Amino acid sequence: MAMGKVTLVSAGPGDLELLTLKAARALASADVVLLDDLVNPEIVTLAPQARVIRVGKRGGCRSTPQAFIERLMQRYARRGLHVVRVKGGDALLFGRAGEELAALHSAGVTVEIVNGISSAFAAAAGLGVSLTHRDHCQGVIFVTAHLRDHSEPDWTVLAATGMTLAIYMGMSRIASLCATLAATLASDTPAAVVQWAGSTKERRATGTLGTIAALAQAAGLGSPAIILVGKAIGEAASFSLSHASFGVGYDEDAGQTPQRLIA
Amino acid sequence: MAMGKVTLVSAGPGDLELLTLKAARALASADVVLLDDLVNPEIVTLAPQARVIRVGKRGGCRSTPQAFIERLMQRYARRGLHVVRVKGGDALLFGRAGEELAALHSAGVTVEIVNGISSAFAAAAGLGVSLTHRDHCQGVIFVTAHLRDHSEPDWTVLAATGMTLAIYMGMSRIASLCATLAATLASDTPAAVVQWAGSTKERRATGTLGTIAALAQAAGLGSPAIILVGKAIGEAASFSLSHASFGVGYDEDAGQTPQRLIA
Repeated sequence: MAMGKVTLVSAGPGDLELLTLKAARALASADVVLLDDLVNPEIVTLAPQARVIRVGKRGGCRSTPQAFIERLMQRYARRGLHVVRVKGGDALLFGRAGEELAALHSAGVTVEIVNGISSAFAAAAGLGVSLTHRDHCQGVIFVTAHLRDHSEPDWTVLAATGMTLAIYMGMSRIASLCATLAATLASDTPAAVVQWAGSTKERRATGTLGTIAALAQAAGLGSPAIILVGKAIGEAASFSLSHASFGVGYDEDAGQTPQRLIA
Repeated sequence: MAMGKVTLVSAGPGDLELLTLKAARALASADVVLLDDLVNPEIVTLAPQARVIRVGKRGGCRSTPQAFIERLMQRYARRGLHVVRVKGGDALLFGRAGEELAALHSAGVTVEIVNGISSAFAAAAGLGVSLTHRDHCQGVIFVTAHLRDHSEPDWTVLAATGMTLAIYMGMSRIASLCATLAATLASDTPAAVVQWAGSTKERRATGTLGTIAALAQAAGLGSPAIILVGKAIGEAASFSLSHASFGVGYDEDAGQTPQRLIA
């Protein structure tokens, strides 16, 4: 039997319209789809022929062990099937893709990687700001506040770079990390929280390092969310009146569903 | 006359298959398309009804002044047209989008932002590696080596973070910046160069901080390219045998052109 393959598809932040054409095509030809946490479950409508296996860690289920997921992919690929492994955002950023790629390569399984939109980009789009501004900073740092050994990144070192910070998985410690950053950066440094960035559930709060933790809490914003900090983010506030123009989603009334788009 | 609008579309790294569904749809309904530098010119096939204006700075032309571009967008939007402004990668990263957004907002023009795949993500996909690995680092820094005032980022501070570095626009000074980084990081820290990442012209070199500048030069790699540095990148070498599996582009013989996909 001919060997199948695995396509590692990055699903982006939620809105199915933010999938790439390549991702949509991979799903359309999938025999088996393995769905990760935080992926919009409606994505399965793009894979009409596929057996769908949910391997997420939320929704009251126990975590699916990583080794089991890797064995599943290998088993189906060996049967000659096209396995599409779907991860939220871009799988190559905080997605533990390295471990799965290593396991598949060791097993001799062909893997193709399809990029996607990581949440911080969608958060900036929702706020209507650029992540960088040539007047303000020379780059952006994508950092997870949730480290494997339960320690924290060295916020002081990161703040000292002067770059925009895009903090993933930081909502459980937003007050303390903002306070730590404010010891290096000015407390009036612009900051924002975007929950469910790039999905129809998107919610935003804008403020400063000194105010954002309280503002986000008052607005009831929690995980999953991106915390953005830096002068480049400061232009968000002035655009707040036209927030409605930064819409997400698509117009179902016009028949423009993703299914139609790739039909 | 009804006011038109501007859609700021991120074209991704080159392969038209890496456009989002949303970007393809915006192009399909465009009346006017303004094309930036480094965008795959074939993207105009997705905007069959549009007047196309090239505002790039390459190809022997003089730079189109930024103020002129901004006035063009406003003029067409005021005529009730749908203007699609196309930038390479994700427009919100090193794209000077902040300036254009501010000008459009000041003029009262509605703007929608569509995210795209930034080159460093495509570079990692081409190498078959993750930008982060939970054993190796807590994040990634996207930094431009080309600053407005012709100074350089503080490479020592960036190296000290221990994060993966994704360096944009660094090829003209790759030898000196790698030498500076090697004063803080070990010279055997994995490094890679990916030119034209995420396009059919993609070319790669992998090595270490100590070797990558010479290897890239020997291979004739130049701009535009991404330089990746960090332990997470180290897994690229071991996958080199299966590079062919990380293909880009699409199978034209199968009739799977982007045009067909959104027809």
